[in-house]
Amino acid sequence: MNADFANFHEAFMRRALAVARCGWGATHPNPMVGALIVEAGEIVAEGFHAKAGEPHAEIVALRALGRAPEPDATLYVTLEPCCTEGRTPPCTGAILASGIRRVVVGATDPNPRHAGRGFELLRAAGVEVVTGVLAEECTDLNLIFNHWIATGRPLLAAKIATTIDGRIACRTGESKWITGEAARADVMRWRRLFPAIAVGAGTVASDDPQLTARLPEGVWCPRRFVFDGALSIATLNPLPRLLSDEWRSRTTIVTSERQHSVVVRKLEELGVQVWRLPAEEGVVSSAAFTERCAREGVTGVLVEGGSRLLSGLIQTRALDYLLAYRAPRVFADASSIPVATGLRVELPSVGLRLAEVRHSVFGDDQLMRGRIVYPDTLEIDTTPGEEHGAGDHHCGCDHD
Amino acid sequence: MNADFANFHEAFMRRALAVARCGWGATHPNPMVGALIVEAGEIVAEGFHAKAGEPHAEIVALRALGRAPEPDATLYVTLEPCCTEGRTPPCTGAILASGIRRVVVGATDPNPRHAGRGFELLRAAGVEVVTGVLAEECTDLNLIFNHWIATGRPLLAAKIATTIDGRIACRTGESKWITGEAARADVMRWRRLFPAIAVGAGTVASDDPQLTARLPEGVWCPRRFVFDGALSIATLNPLPRLLSDEWRSRTTIVTSERQHSVVVRKLEELGVQVWRLPAEEGVVSSAAFTERCAREGVTGVLVEGGSRLLSGLIQTRALDYLLAYRAPRVFADASSIPVATGLRVELPSVGLRLAEVRHSVFGDDQLMRGRIVYPDTLEIDTTPGEEHGAGDHHCGCDHD
Repeated sequence: MNADFANFHEAFMRRALAVARCGWGATHPNPMVGALIVEAGEIVAEGFHAKAGEPHAEIVALRALGRAPEPDATLYVTLEPCCTEGRTPPCTGAILASGIRRVVVGATDPNPRHAGRGFELLRAAGVEVVTGVLAEECTDLNLIFNHWIATGRPLLAAKIATTIDGRIACRTGESKWITGEAARADVMRWRRLFPAIAVGAGTVASDDPQLTARLPEGVWCPRRFVFDGALSIATLNPLPRLLSDEWRSRTTIVTSERQHSVVVRKLEELGVQVWRLPAEEGVVSSAAFTERCAREGVTGVLVEGGSRLLSGLIQTRALDYLLAYRAPRVFADASSIPVATGLRVELPSVGLRLAEVRHSVFGDDQLMRGRIVYPDTLEIDTTPGEEHGAGDHHCGCDHD
Repeated sequence: MNADFANFHEAFMRRALAVARCGWGATHPNPMVGALIVEAGEIVAEGFHAKAGEPHAEIVALRALGRAPEPDATLYVTLEPCCTEGRTPPCTGAILASGIRRVVVGATDPNPRHAGRGFELLRAAGVEVVTGVLAEECTDLNLIFNHWIATGRPLLAAKIATTIDGRIACRTGESKWITGEAARADVMRWRRLFPAIAVGAGTVASDDPQLTARLPEGVWCPRRFVFDGALSIATLNPLPRLLSDEWRSRTTIVTSERQHSVVVRKLEELGVQVWRLPAEEGVVSSAAFTERCAREGVTGVLVEGGSRLLSGLIQTRALDYLLAYRAPRVFADASSIPVATGLRVELPSVGLRLAEVRHSVFGDDQLMRGRIVYPDTLEIDTTPGEEHGAGDHHCGCDHD
């Protein structure tokens, strides 16, 4: 592929990515996919996957064309066409049937059992296949799906908003606002993407958040998890919004299996769901939580704090991904709330790091995000300092 | 100015900025300035200010042209031409004498007594003057000069390299390395820019840094300050590199005026300078330090830690600017070293913030930098936590 062709392909793939994003948050457990048909250098049809069970992007584009493609037609698609029978017939068959002779693809199928088989099948039938165009962007588009399909577990991602000195809230627990409007609007987009959002009980008590995605096109309520080993939020007066608003049936309290059934019944009468899971010292097992998510088809969870919940997820290696906003602020206050604590790190190389790092700027704020890579051994700090305690009582997150 | 002209002007101004940067770090106390002469849409001459006392960029470009400019010639210059007699005659006079009829300028003169006067003078003589082209970038180029000329004091800037959770070193003091190679190479560029670098005595004891700028084009040693109220580094065995290397005459120990003259004499015999300044409880007054810098013509100081030095400079509002690198790492260790401590911040809005924020990416790391804006009142934390102590003994910085 020479440089001119590369630019040409990238420009169309960028458009296919934009088309794919029309399915933002709506395709779970399927990936977002966008497709274009290009004839004589012009886009003549577009399609995206809108929802599980509905046609795949390639099929939508072919139908939108409404006629046989010209002999020079190229299909651009952000993800390797499927070659197996799922809820819909395989796309490779439809592509071959359409007579299209050239296919340009972004990401390879993240399912290790299928990766590259769609390409082989098309090539075997004489179709020219160009792969890896904007591969990183196309892969990044489906970070939830990629994890789910490869591991069978939900992607547990945390969103944090910190000062330059890494604090998520003041010593008082106050965190409104650390980041600016543009970064907070971006968080709404992530809330719309993830099938579920999770917070700790302390966050509910201090902030009474809604955890909805308030977007220009409307309000969306994802599934909302509250980690509450002690079932403390059921006793709050007035009841928090997560237990009383119009979307309370989308709230699930994650608690210890030893919790008293009276309170559980009270919550269920409110229309709220309760997951009673194995717990140790009042802290619900993150392994049990991810297993239950997997069983119920929850492919991704965005954890929005606080410090205590994050610390627990890090200590058990349960956290997979981090979205870290940074605002141009400095607290320089030893008692302000840290992102997480609980580890002993004696060398930079034995701390956590991110891979597949991506950067963005929102106004004066920065976002750094990536997949968490844990060191071989995590040393747990058994003598937490004063600071550690602070994170237990406060929310420690920019949420509402 | 319509959009086409704006793009045209910006493209040339971007080149003038690149030309100006040929004087990177070499022009103090003067600003970096770049100039181009453009005729019929082509650059026919370039110039930059190389060193104080040498000709200004506009003059260098006019001389490089070596003939009278064509009637359509335009002069591009990154900074408003000077209109007053300094060490060299005013540039406005030379521009008028050259016959150039159009001047396009980036930044306005930051000296409030001169700002805009160069423009007026040229316009009064019938020259067309376009101002504000890439004004932000052109202003940012001279952040040291701008502060110096407006306040008469050196720009005190701090460079930090942190994890996502805002830590500058592990609990052990180890900080090699938090950021990656590309970010550390960028730090070398800043070391070349600032006339002086400063560290605390703890940093010297733990890291034995050189504080030189190791650049592809060679090694440069800036003036090196060590804050050492107790004159402790003189007793280290072996002597630290700052007191023994080939550039030791560029090292200045900043200590208390009450320090014993025997140790001071020992240091002076090594060829090292000593500034004895007013101090309180062993901590040298930052006001006295900046005054002494001003008197000796040191226009900017890059502070490279540690945590204790930064905390002191923040508490006294002495720190003017922050360069904050962030690496995709998380320590999650309450005993790791914070950027700075010593304040009580109860609301995000009463913490420090940055203005004129600029963002860059170096490999997987990010840089956020800006001018520090202090709140009206700084509440000092008189009950430092456990964490505060940690910063006192360790280096807490990515330096060498």
